[in-house]
Amino acid sequence: MENTENKDNLKIILDDASNLSLNQIRRLLNKMTPSEIAHTLESSPPKQRTLLFSLLKTDEEGDVLFELGEEIQQDLVSNISNEELAEAVKELELDEVVDILQNLPEERMEKILSSMSMVDRQRIEMGLIFPDNTAGGLLNTDVISVRPNNTINEVIIYLRGQKELPENTDKIFVVNDLNEYLGELSISKIITSDPSLTVKEIMETDILPIDVEVDDKEVATIFERNDLISSPVIDQNKKLIGRITIDDVVDVIREDADQNLLGMAGVAEDTFAPPGRAAKSRVFWLSMNLITAFIAASTINLFQEVIDKIVYLAVLMPIVASMGGVAATQTLTIVIRGLTLEQINTSNIRWLFKRELAVSILNGVVLSLLVGIATYAWFQDMTIALLISFALVINLISSVIAGILVPLILRKLKQDPAIGGSVVVTTVTDVVGFLSFLGLATIYLV
Amino acid sequence: MENTENKDNLKIILDDASNLSLNQIRRLLNKMTPSEIAHTLESSPPKQRTLLFSLLKTDEEGDVLFELGEEIQQDLVSNISNEELAEAVKELELDEVVDILQNLPEERMEKILSSMSMVDRQRIEMGLIFPDNTAGGLLNTDVISVRPNNTINEVIIYLRGQKELPENTDKIFVVNDLNEYLGELSISKIITSDPSLTVKEIMETDILPIDVEVDDKEVATIFERNDLISSPVIDQNKKLIGRITIDDVVDVIREDADQNLLGMAGVAEDTFAPPGRAAKSRVFWLSMNLITAFIAASTINLFQEVIDKIVYLAVLMPIVASMGGVAATQTLTIVIRGLTLEQINTSNIRWLFKRELAVSILNGVVLSLLVGIATYAWFQDMTIALLISFALVINLISSVIAGILVPLILRKLKQDPAIGGSVVVTTVTDVVGFLSFLGLATIYLV
Repeated sequence: MENTENKDNLKIILDDASNLSLNQIRRLLNKMTPSEIAHTLESSPPKQRTLLFSLLKTDEEGDVLFELGEEIQQDLVSNISNEELAEAVKELELDEVVDILQNLPEERMEKILSSMSMVDRQRIEMGLIFPDNTAGGLLNTDVISVRPNNTINEVIIYLRGQKELPENTDKIFVVNDLNEYLGELSISKIITSDPSLTVKEIMETDILPIDVEVDDKEVATIFERNDLISSPVIDQNKKLIGRITIDDVVDVIREDADQNLLGMAGVAEDTFAPPGRAAKSRVFWLSMNLITAFIAASTINLFQEVIDKIVYLAVLMPIVASMGGVAATQTLTIVIRGLTLEQINTSNIRWLFKRELAVSILNGVVLSLLVGIATYAWFQDMTIALLISFALVINLISSVIAGILVPLILRKLKQDPAIGGSVVVTTVTDVVGFLSFLGLATIYLV
Repeated sequence: MENTENKDNLKIILDDASNLSLNQIRRLLNKMTPSEIAHTLESSPPKQRTLLFSLLKTDEEGDVLFELGEEIQQDLVSNISNEELAEAVKELELDEVVDILQNLPEERMEKILSSMSMVDRQRIEMGLIFPDNTAGGLLNTDVISVRPNNTINEVIIYLRGQKELPENTDKIFVVNDLNEYLGELSISKIITSDPSLTVKEIMETDILPIDVEVDDKEVATIFERNDLISSPVIDQNKKLIGRITIDDVVDVIREDADQNLLGMAGVAEDTFAPPGRAAKSRVFWLSMNLITAFIAASTINLFQEVIDKIVYLAVLMPIVASMGGVAATQTLTIVIRGLTLEQINTSNIRWLFKRELAVSILNGVVLSLLVGIATYAWFQDMTIALLISFALVINLISSVIAGILVPLILRKLKQDPAIGGSVVVTTVTDVVGFLSFLGLATIYLV
């Protein structure tokens, strides 16, 4: 089976690249699809990646570049000449060319555009107008449109006149003389309908076109809610300017999920980024954490006296802080997921807050009992056991407040609530953890 | 525009449900697609959710149930009668019915199946054979197949004989007399080809069918790599038994991403799960963290003596632990992402390990300098400043080892590397953090 076979090619390249001659590798690459080659590049350290890319034919480079993540794409693009790049992107769909060119420096983009034919150039310049993260950034202009008064027979003759239909063409669009969108006609409807009917009679008008300015995440939602394969895109004047296809929407969904996962840990880099770049991508949140760690340390510093008297407070205090951190990250994750899926809004946030409070109290009772018993077993001190239990409950409640408020505030400030959220919430639980435990100890033990 | 309008309906229901009469809500629900209704249910607390679901017509219930996450689906299913459920799922596609029925208790399933017609029953029983997380679990039997010797004209006449084609039919399949899969024929190819050609002459054979036993994540990869809308599925005897469509694959991709995000925090519940269930889903990893927190505390306990002498060691020690924890989570996240995307393998793990080491040393130098300066500014003690800097570098290096090894070991043990990984890695960095800082202090200060 081809799928298995290509997987083997991939494995051979990844595992044994150093044992293969360049010609052998070239032959393996020839058997793979652009998307498989892109995956191989993304799974390779930078040096090997550059080598593999240099073995591709120019006409393959464009397709492969489009399939790559932004960071790797830009690296590779910066290594090839303007002529080669212009040649490589020539055969791509509009959204694919735009995806590759939009990140280039102004000057370089000008040079490449000026080396293209007038038609190509105008087409691409139109695509470059739209921001990357909108429907416009996913736009293809390869639409087939017909008029409402055409008969199905005329449509079939017209379609048969095309050598082949653009990829993922599950429907064609109906427009008036001003190119304003009127409705759509699925290919399967065309094939199953009486050829003497007119387009107007069988076109569908209930799924509405996507506005070019809509956010790309919103586009993904519209596709998922309506199980779409493709959707027409219109400009402010209701004119049909292109379509979006499901393959590009799947990429948006993947990237969105990826950003949440990486963002929460404060990383933003591809898996095999070179060390310097990886270090740079992570040092910001590490430094933020350094500041917050010193804030937590200052909290402890307030209680030097009590620690000095009862040294095993220092032994136990990280337990309270650490439990709060885990609980806060759990709440934070639920809230970030709910915000991403657009499930959380003003009407249910109160319920969610109460639910999280109930969860923290339920788990607080169980865990503080366990912590109390373990502490008593260890230090044979009932007061300390009671204090740590009580401090834990306080910290679990603070974890709920932090876990819910921090992402909501970040979102209000138009920041991505996933990014670095966990550093902020664990600061709160560290501070409250140390404060409550050492504070209670000061009151009851000094 | 409908998309905006429905969004408004959704908002009205979510925000003002308590101010609307049941009839008003029912009218709003009527205007929404099943997927939008499902989203409204998923965004509602349990009580409101049950109410909204009870307002649906029976023939809508099936579609809505299928669109829901497993947990909410099961809750709602457990509240409706066998007869109603059998009626609700009657019109669904095979994979949708199976998705809903497979989680029912054996006895209940039997009762529902026995209330169905023989044909429906046999169809569903066939679907229930396949495990949920395989190609078989995504299978639909609504395939259209033709023979290689049919002419395109015959195919068109046959298709025209159907009232409408199944949803997401971008291609039909070619089989021999034994129903063995031979190739596929896209609808757009049918429409653009000379009607006198035979199927054999224009069918495509280069994309191979998916084996029914293939893992569902692998199915998603095949769809993404080849930009597929639908794909044929064959059994062990190469017989065509159905097809998988992109809408179900998008669900797999979403769920996969969701599991990674939630798993890392040790949560496994829907956003609006009732408090008892949410508490239960989270208490396991909180308890694990309790154990590991006590392990970290025991490490500190070894150094009571030195803390007793120099109390501000207790103030500073959480800084080293906390920085290691953040760094370890960053490495862990990169590794989990790489494993999920199948980018990491035996050939590049060494490179990755060396890269992470380099990152930890690079950032270690920067951060230990900052930590050293801050510590010196605070306590005016050069030895402590040097010790904490050095301990930080040690802990950042340990964070790399934990962040890489823990997910790899979990995967070797056939566990999901994302689940609870962060609790395990931060234990390592806590222990190493306390050990290195307090250990060095014991050596140099006592």
